[in-house]
Amino acid sequence: MNNGATIKINVDEAIMSALREDVTSEDITTNAVMREPRQGRAELICKQDGVLAGIGVFRRVFELLDDTAAFELYYEDGDKVSEGAVIGIVTGDIRCLLTGERTALNFLQRMSGIASYTRGLADVLEGSQTKLLDTRKTTPNMRVFEKYAVKVGGGHNHRYNLSDGILLKDNHIGAAGSVKKAVAMAKEYASFVRKIEVEVENLEMLEEALEAGADIIMLDNMDSETMRKAVAMVDGRAETECSGNVTLERLSEIAEIGVDYVSCGALTHSAPILDFSLKNLRPIEA
Amino acid sequence: MNNGATIKINVDEAIMSALREDVTSEDITTNAVMREPRQGRAELICKQDGVLAGIGVFRRVFELLDDTAAFELYYEDGDKVSEGAVIGIVTGDIRCLLTGERTALNFLQRMSGIASYTRGLADVLEGSQTKLLDTRKTTPNMRVFEKYAVKVGGGHNHRYNLSDGILLKDNHIGAAGSVKKAVAMAKEYASFVRKIEVEVENLEMLEEALEAGADIIMLDNMDSETMRKAVAMVDGRAETECSGNVTLERLSEIAEIGVDYVSCGALTHSAPILDFSLKNLRPIEA
Amino acid sequence: MNNGATIKINVDEAIMSALREDVTSEDITTNAVMREPRQGRAELICKQDGVLAGIGVFRRVFELLDDTAAFELYYEDGDKVSEGAVIGIVTGDIRCLLTGERTALNFLQRMSGIASYTRGLADVLEGSQTKLLDTRKTTPNMRVFEKYAVKVGGGHNHRYNLSDGILLKDNHIGAAGSVKKAVAMAKEYASFVRKIEVEVENLEMLEEALEAGADIIMLDNMDSETMRKAVAMVDGRAETECSGNVTLERLSEIAEIGVDYVSCGALTHSAPILDFSLKNLRPIEA
Amino acid sequence: MNNGATIKINVDEAIMSALREDVTSEDITTNAVMREPRQGRAELICKQDGVLAGIGVFRRVFELLDDTAAFELYYEDGDKVSEGAVIGIVTGDIRCLLTGERTALNFLQRMSGIASYTRGLADVLEGSQTKLLDTRKTTPNMRVFEKYAVKVGGGHNHRYNLSDGILLKDNHIGAAGSVKKAVAMAKEYASFVRKIEVEVENLEMLEEALEAGADIIMLDNMDSETMRKAVAMVDGRAETECSGNVTLERLSEIAEIGVDYVSCGALTHSAPILDFSLKNLRPIEA
Amino acid sequence: MNNGATIKINVDEAIMSALREDVTSEDITTNAVMREPRQGRAELICKQDGVLAGIGVFRRVFELLDDTAAFELYYEDGDKVSEGAVIGIVTGDIRCLLTGERTALNFLQRMSGIASYTRGLADVLEGSQTKLLDTRKTTPNMRVFEKYAVKVGGGHNHRYNLSDGILLKDNHIGAAGSVKKAVAMAKEYASFVRKIEVEVENLEMLEEALEAGADIIMLDNMDSETMRKAVAMVDGRAETECSGNVTLERLSEIAEIGVDYVSCGALTHSAPILDFSLKNLRPIEA
Amino acid sequence: MNNGATIKINVDEAIMSALREDVTSEDITTNAVMREPRQGRAELICKQDGVLAGIGVFRRVFELLDDTAAFELYYEDGDKVSEGAVIGIVTGDIRCLLTGERTALNFLQRMSGIASYTRGLADVLEGSQTKLLDTRKTTPNMRVFEKYAVKVGGGHNHRYNLSDGILLKDNHIGAAGSVKKAVAMAKEYASFVRKIEVEVENLEMLEEALEAGADIIMLDNMDSETMRKAVAMVDGRAETECSGNVTLERLSEIAEIGVDYVSCGALTHSAPILDFSLKNLRPIEA
Repeated sequence: MNNGATIKINVDEAIMSALREDVTSEDITTNAVMREPRQGRAELICKQDGVLAGIGVFRRVFELLDDTAAFELYYEDGDKVSEGAVIGIVTGDIRCLLTGERTALNFLQRMSGIASYTRGLADVLEGSQTKLLDTRKTTPNMRVFEKYAVKVGGGHNHRYNLSDGILLKDNHIGAAGSVKKAVAMAKEYASFVRKIEVEVENLEMLEEALEAGADIIMLDNMDSETMRKAVAMVDGRAETECSGNVTLERLSEIAEIGVDYVSCGALTHSAPILDFSLKNLRPIEA
Repeated sequence: MNNGATIKINVDEAIMSALREDVTSEDITTNAVMREPRQGRAELICKQDGVLAGIGVFRRVFELLDDTAAFELYYEDGDKVSEGAVIGIVTGDIRCLLTGERTALNFLQRMSGIASYTRGLADVLEGSQTKLLDTRKTTPNMRVFEKYAVKVGGGHNHRYNLSDGILLKDNHIGAAGSVKKAVAMAKEYASFVRKIEVEVENLEMLEEALEAGADIIMLDNMDSETMRKAVAMVDGRAETECSGNVTLERLSEIAEIGVDYVSCGALTHSAPILDFSLKNLRPIEA
Repeated sequence: MNNGATIKINVDEAIMSALREDVTSEDITTNAVMREPRQGRAELICKQDGVLAGIGVFRRVFELLDDTAAFELYYEDGDKVSEGAVIGIVTGDIRCLLTGERTALNFLQRMSGIASYTRGLADVLEGSQTKLLDTRKTTPNMRVFEKYAVKVGGGHNHRYNLSDGILLKDNHIGAAGSVKKAVAMAKEYASFVRKIEVEVENLEMLEEALEAGADIIMLDNMDSETMRKAVAMVDGRAETECSGNVTLERLSEIAEIGVDYVSCGALTHSAPILDFSLKNLRPIEA
Repeated sequence: MNNGATIKINVDEAIMSALREDVTSEDITTNAVMREPRQGRAELICKQDGVLAGIGVFRRVFELLDDTAAFELYYEDGDKVSEGAVIGIVTGDIRCLLTGERTALNFLQRMSGIASYTRGLADVLEGSQTKLLDTRKTTPNMRVFEKYAVKVGGGHNHRYNLSDGILLKDNHIGAAGSVKKAVAMAKEYASFVRKIEVEVENLEMLEEALEAGADIIMLDNMDSETMRKAVAMVDGRAETECSGNVTLERLSEIAEIGVDYVSCGALTHSAPILDFSLKNLRPIEA
Repeated sequence: MNNGATIKINVDEAIMSALREDVTSEDITTNAVMREPRQGRAELICKQDGVLAGIGVFRRVFELLDDTAAFELYYEDGDKVSEGAVIGIVTGDIRCLLTGERTALNFLQRMSGIASYTRGLADVLEGSQTKLLDTRKTTPNMRVFEKYAVKVGGGHNHRYNLSDGILLKDNHIGAAGSVKKAVAMAKEYASFVRKIEVEVENLEMLEEALEAGADIIMLDNMDSETMRKAVAMVDGRAETECSGNVTLERLSEIAEIGVDYVSCGALTHSAPILDFSLKNLRPIEA
Repeated sequence: MNNGATIKINVDEAIMSALREDVTSEDITTNAVMREPRQGRAELICKQDGVLAGIGVFRRVFELLDDTAAFELYYEDGDKVSEGAVIGIVTGDIRCLLTGERTALNFLQRMSGIASYTRGLADVLEGSQTKLLDTRKTTPNMRVFEKYAVKVGGGHNHRYNLSDGILLKDNHIGAAGSVKKAVAMAKEYASFVRKIEVEVENLEMLEEALEAGADIIMLDNMDSETMRKAVAMVDGRAETECSGNVTLERLSEIAEIGVDYVSCGALTHSAPILDFSLKNLRPIEA
């Protein structure tokens, strides 16, 4: 979201919709007491240690509200930020600053919360070959923001949605008749640029998936011993992904086993926010 | 969201948008292996203890995708649910069940997560006169779902957005010139059905707000002693709300002090999800 | 609508939609005869005495069509305007002036019509404590413009919509079982920032509503004598609103009785427009 | 709007948008006191004499909210209705009836107001060859409803918008260089199914327009004597339209002069509503 | 589309929608390798001989993506362009050029393809009185672009859609009872600015249509001899249109017979594109 | 598009938008002559030999307009159809059949045109290992329909858009510094389920791309001899795609050389339509 085209194509509409959610008719408190525009400035302050994500979205909220909005920013996405740090200065019509404040912070806090949480898990994997993945367990209508925040926090993205990745689960395999048939049908049906991922529950299915030419094997809820055997069986013939309830301890073990990827829904569905606030709003003397 | 009109006016659009987020062109995995409709059934299983919220939204996802979708539900919003409980049975075209599964669960999990977290805090206030409030710190474009979930979990809603509630903060008061003027301007400007809330930082401002005729006083970041004095000063002339970083211990103290409302942003911005899954999907024999 | 944020969040979409209503493919008359942009100017003339409302919306129509649009305005919303007055000068690409003219005038005429009509009734109440209210009897999809125009004309706004105000009518009371139960259910269900209004048809219901703690009492279709008794009974324990077919004569009587508010659907549903036109369009010599 | 396709293509979206305008999150009053669906019935009562228009839109509001909505209607669009008449019976979930009531009535009242007002003027022209026309002076985003209502009331529609009709005014003619050139450019540019209308201010321009092959001549603000000469000059070579501030007296004179069409902006911009209400809502005993 | 108002009202939304079709979340290739904005330039090259159409749309794609986009254009819509010609230079953030390239070209290629194909057929009619018409056989949601391109290529537009033109076909006539009744009903129902077109299959129907006062007669699938008789019968009493599968040879014959208009669906449904590409993209040294 | 979920998520909105394009206010011809619903039937006739695609979209147009629409279909997508064949019978309100006809046919004709054209080219490749691919050169806002039609015609889909596939071209490689760096940056940035495709212009770049670990190599505009060497060099280490202006003769040669995929923009940008019509519409006697 450091690319203007991304902002205009994929972000602006969500911001405007969020602003309409927060302002059905007008900001009655602000409009009651300030009838005229007046330039002001405020500081964006970080209230917790963490990783910044979404500063471009924060900024865009005010730009969409106010042609005079301007920014002086001291940090960028991916930077570590500490409690008390001044992230930047926003200037513009005070009324627009007040009206946009909550929406801008709601985006920033959630995105930074995800990046910070992701960073914490990714650090555990540091030095290993195992990479941390997100999932499709995102907040409805927030995926573009949440998957970006995962990347900012040092994680990697799994498929974006049901249209751009193949993942054959037991029901798909059952419908096809066998792993082999399912993989063949998927290769025939989907774009050839898609990798084929197959979820396996045991070593027999794993062998079948490898023979069928799966590009990625998801090892579903396996214990460590089985997973170790699985990784040995795969032996580089496919990429491996491990999913399931991942704890910090488990993460180290998975890394040590040598699975290529570990996916974690909590990155997007259960990360607490990182707290920020807009402080010291005051008029700018002309 | 147990009212069909609410669903059609305020929910359907968000569901369709979330489905389009998850399905840009089609569900390629499902469509690759299942070319024809086939009726099936699956169980909605709860994987953690908590409070159910959003079952009507979960259900609506499938109804919007599949005219043949049908439901047998054993729990309703607000019910306590336990790990392993079968919440209900969904039947319909297996392809639609697979395509809608993640979106339906993403809504349900987030809403139930909020309800469960809220319930936990609300239980602490049980027996006191203090009520738990949410804030506008919601996930962008999810407010209607999140504020509903708070209510399901035993919390109460603060204003919905900037258009339907007055909350005069320091910047508003500064612009108006004084608390008194700010309240007067707000009463003149806003609908007469709005209550006027004023945020105060100390007892002088509190007195001024009371004299100005504020309906609600927000006691901002006061220590317990000051808050106690504030409540005594108010003496029923207005409702009182306390906001700020609320912990479980603090909550009991606030209740004991006798503040009317305590608001907590974490209800909507930091509650982890409650985990559910759709299991045992299988064809229905004709 | 003198606030840029309000315009961008709550007005732009309606303007663009109205322009698309008036221009399905292109303005064929204008495009047939003018193939190239040419700067011009036109005067906005008032053709009837009244109150101006919506000049910011008028202006925004052209700004959205033409980056070169510029304005010199001699009046602002709320000002009295007289037949023949030049409200302002618009400059821009002549083609955009011609294409946007009707849409811009349609907004301005309707909004000024409502403001003028409202001003007429509000003047009758001048000096009394009774305030004039609008209703939800607005033109579909025009509420934000119409309620604003009422305020510009000296009226006050009732609740904006069904989500931000409580009004318990006979059917609600019947469903709840009693006025008391209805008020209690409403207080429990709705945001605590909402006032509770109850519609009463006679003095028994009034007493019940007062005891139940209603914040506002709507005196529905009462004759003057009953209304007088009602106001005496209320005696400051709640705010009072009188609704029903309001005529000019009735208005004075209501004011004299001392009801706090009188609501009038005609403000938004039956006010004739105030006529304006764009005149003397001519090219600007370079 | 007695055609299902028209409703689905051109009406549903406006209704849903109007419902969202009136219900940001939910109907809090109704949902507070009625937690479960309950079938009920209500009567649609006419409160003034006039012409019914928009009963299909009224009906559709409830159909879009409630799959169980059903109707028994005793009048159709175009029928004369009298104060006190029961127009029909609506049945459905009482909660949906309450939530949709205001929106449904807002459409019906405005449309019937326009039809009634139009009927009044059209009756004056009865027996003459002069037909009554509407204009583009409609309420923004309501044109499809308002132009339909004019037709229901016995009026005729002028062009729908800037894309489907040619009307060359002084600025267009000035840009083209002459009436002749303007007509030629319009014929070359626009679809050949468009008639070319030219606005003329005096008899010289009229002659020029006739020679240029205009299909329709708009006689702009002419006094009766000039208009009479103009009609004589035209002598069937084109259709004639007279516009300008039209009063009841003027209308008869215009008809007598023999102008083909008289257009009147007031039909859509200044007609008061026709009053209806939904009464006697009560539960249906099972 | 050389009018800014047309672009903003009727084009921008389609462009943004097309960009969202091509960019669900972000341009991953570009964003992977270019993290920062960098100004660059590229040449728009024509790869086939033909007629340019849509250069304003091409340009607008980049303007919507990038505030720094700028253009130097050497050709305009309607110009003949040759293989290898440099149509213009685009400058802007290289990332936006890469992201918008395909969408911009997809519009331009299709529009220029239609203009070029139309030009080819229109040239055959050169010197005759017969004009070439398009139809409603356009690509869904592309009509505004395709009908414009026809005009650029020297064709003329038939009605834009079902709402702005009357065309009575056999089913309509059957429903009305006779040609005469159908024409009368259409004149009564539709705006008086609409011409009435009747499709006739033989000379009897033709006579009936002329007597009924049809403005335009569509001669449907007639052989040349019958068509010749038809044109003689009409004798200027109406305009004539011939439709049906039109070949180049047939076109000359139709022109010679003297039909006023010949419509051809292939203009919009089967024209191949005109090929363009964006070449020599390179950074601009500061 | 044989899956109800696909239709509801990805198709309905485009159909409604296309209907609104064709019906701004109402179908005036139909509504003029048919004031009441009347059940009728019509035959969908094929007028050219080809491959059927889009019959589900055709059907959905009428279902969205008319709750009584019903179908008896004799062919399905992918079937060869011959001139004169009756594809199926549509029944419903005659007015809806007339209003929806053109939109339904516009979708069907374009989709079947693409499928037929694709089938023609795919047949040339029959028996070889080379597969036919589409491109992103689709009609704006029609991609979901056009890519589906390619698949129906025996082609395969390349990436859907810029978000779900990596294709490193010269500008990307230049920005990264080298092929190796570009591939590494892409692997790091994009989802791990994405294959990395690199466009190469000569054998040096090819070697570099193979060493960098590209999954797919696009051989850009190579002559046959170079392409042959390229395929030999690749030797199974990556998939190969050949793009550029593909003719029928060239296609056979490419297949013989053994390239894995050949992409062809003409499938979607230049295929003529396959002609269909709705015939023999007549009322159904009750």
